[in-house]
Amino acid sequence: MIIDKLIESILKKENPSVVGLDPRVSLVPKHILNECFEKYGKTPKAVAESFYLFNKGIIDATYDIIPAVKPQVAMYEMYGTDGFESYIKTIEYAREKGLIVIGDIKRSDIASTAKAYSDGHIGIIDIEDNKYEIYKEDFITVNPYLGIDSIEPYFDNCKNNEKGLFVLVKTSNPNSGQLQDLDVGGMTLYEKVGGLVNEWGQDLMGKYNYHSIGAVVGATHPSQAEKLRKIMPNTFFLVPGYGAQGGKAEDLSVCFDKNGIGAIINSSRGIIGYYQKNDKFSDENFADGAREAALNMKEDLKKCFK
Amino acid sequence: MIIDKLIESILKKENPSVVGLDPRVSLVPKHILNECFEKYGKTPKAVAESFYLFNKGIIDATYDIIPAVKPQVAMYEMYGTDGFESYIKTIEYAREKGLIVIGDIKRSDIASTAKAYSDGHIGIIDIEDNKYEIYKEDFITVNPYLGIDSIEPYFDNCKNNEKGLFVLVKTSNPNSGQLQDLDVGGMTLYEKVGGLVNEWGQDLMGKYNYHSIGAVVGATHPSQAEKLRKIMPNTFFLVPGYGAQGGKAEDLSVCFDKNGIGAIINSSRGIIGYYQKNDKFSDENFADGAREAALNMKEDLKKCFK
Repeated sequence: MIIDKLIESILKKENPSVVGLDPRVSLVPKHILNECFEKYGKTPKAVAESFYLFNKGIIDATYDIIPAVKPQVAMYEMYGTDGFESYIKTIEYAREKGLIVIGDIKRSDIASTAKAYSDGHIGIIDIEDNKYEIYKEDFITVNPYLGIDSIEPYFDNCKNNEKGLFVLVKTSNPNSGQLQDLDVGGMTLYEKVGGLVNEWGQDLMGKYNYHSIGAVVGATHPSQAEKLRKIMPNTFFLVPGYGAQGGKAEDLSVCFDKNGIGAIINSSRGIIGYYQKNDKFSDENFADGAREAALNMKEDLKKCFK
Repeated sequence: MIIDKLIESILKKENPSVVGLDPRVSLVPKHILNECFEKYGKTPKAVAESFYLFNKGIIDATYDIIPAVKPQVAMYEMYGTDGFESYIKTIEYAREKGLIVIGDIKRSDIASTAKAYSDGHIGIIDIEDNKYEIYKEDFITVNPYLGIDSIEPYFDNCKNNEKGLFVLVKTSNPNSGQLQDLDVGGMTLYEKVGGLVNEWGQDLMGKYNYHSIGAVVGATHPSQAEKLRKIMPNTFFLVPGYGAQGGKAEDLSVCFDKNGIGAIINSSRGIIGYYQKNDKFSDENFADGAREAALNMKEDLKKCFK
C-alpha cells in the first residue's frame, strides 16, 4: 500500500514534508538557463531542460532528508511536449533517488475520460501486449466536482499498481471558500467532500489506519483542518500553503494524530527559491540553499507535535 | 470576441454542433493503426500518430459543415509527450481548416498555477523576447471548485488574445449531482456556480449578448439546463452528453434563446465511431461515416428550434 510507504518514509526521515517542484524561469539560476539557451536556443525545450537540471540539483541536495517531492504539472505543461518530457524525467529521477512522487495534476473528468488520465498517470498502457508506464507518479491529485464516478476510475490502478490519490477537499487559495465553504445542510461543502473521501478510501486501507485516497487540506485554514481531521480519521492529508502562502507550523498540529502521523506538508517556493532570499547563497549554490530551507522546515515542523 | 466568431460560424453553417475528437485505439481504423505500428513500432508514438491521422480524416470530411471541434486532452495526455504532440498537431490542423477549437482540459488550480495553464493554453509564452503559442486552443474548459481566484488568471488572455472559457457548471455524468445538486441555501450548487459564471463574463461581452466565459451544461439534465438558461442569460452553453450518453435533441431547445442561439452541442463517439455501427461503412471510409453522422446530427438538432 503506497500510503504505508509514504508514512514509513516520513517516519524514517523524521520529516513530514514534501518539496514542491514548481520551477519557473525566474527561479532557475542564470548559469543553468544560459547553458540551456546555448544548447537549444531561446526555446521551450531550453526552459524545460533547465527545469529538469534545476530539479535534479534540488533532489540531489535533499533526497536524503525528505520523503517526497510534488511536481506541479502546470509549470511543465505550459512548455508543451518539451515541458512534459522534463516532468517525466523529473519523476524518474526522483524515484531513482528513493523519493515518493506526488504528481500535482488536479485532473477531473467523466468516467471514460478519467480512465484515460488514470491509465496514463498511475496505470499501465497496453499497446498490443507491449506495456508502458507513462508518467509514473506514486500519487496524483484530483478534483471532486464531478462526483464519485469521476474518481472511481482511479481506484483499480491504485489497488493493482500500488498508487494513491489526494482529492481536493479544502484548498489553500484565498477564494477557496467561495464554493467550498457553502453550507450544504448542516455542514460545509468541503466537510461533505471530506466525509465522502474518507469513505472512498476504505478499500485501500493501510496498516497505519490511513488509506491511499488522501485529501488536499490547505494550511491556510487551520480551524477547518481541525474539523476535517475529525470527519476524516482515516484520510491522510496533503497540506499546501505552508510558508510562501502564509501557513504556519504552529497551526498544523491539528492535521496530525496522537502518534504524530496523518499529514505531509508541502513547501514549493519556500524551498526551491530560498537561495534568492538569503545572502549566504547565490545562483551557484542554489541547491545548498534548498537543503538549508528543507532542514529549517523539518525543524519548524517539530512544532506540529506538541 | 471569440464568442462572436463561434456564434457566427454556427449561424453560417446552420449547425450548433461540435465534434468531440476523443480518439482511442478501439476507434481508429486498423489500416491507420497498422501503418503507424509499421513506422514507429508498437509504441505510444505510433498510437499518438494514428490519432492525428484519424482526426485529420474526420476534420477533412466535416470541416465544411461543422463550426468547431473539441479534442479531449486526456486521450492524448495518456500517451505522454507523443500524445501531446498529436493533440497540438490536431489543433493546428483544425484551425487551418477554419474550425474553432475547444480544448477540453478541465484544469483547476490556485492563481499562480492557473496562470501557467492560462499562458500555456490560451496565452503567449515569452522566452527572452521570443514569443511562443504552445497549445493554441480558442476555448478551454476549466473546473470552478477552487473559486474565482482560480478562474481570473485566464481572463487577461481571453481579453488580449481573443480566447474564451467554458466553466464546468453541471456535468453530464451519472453522479454529477453528488456535489453539484446539493442545496446551498435556496438553490443548488450548480445554480450558484451558474450565477457566478454569468457575472464573471460581463467584461467579455460580445455583440450577440453572450460573453466569452461559457458554461458546460450536460444534455443529460434538460430541466436543469432550463433553470440555468434563466440564471445565465448571457452565458453560452457547451452541452456534452448528446447521443452516446443519452441526451436527446428534443430536450435541448431549453438551452437556446428565441433567436436559436446560446448553445453548442457536442458529440464524440456518436460521430467519430459511427462507421463502426453502420454496415454502410468500413474502416476505409470511416471519414464518410463521420460526415454522415455529423449531417444526421445537424438535421436532428433542428428539433432544438421549435
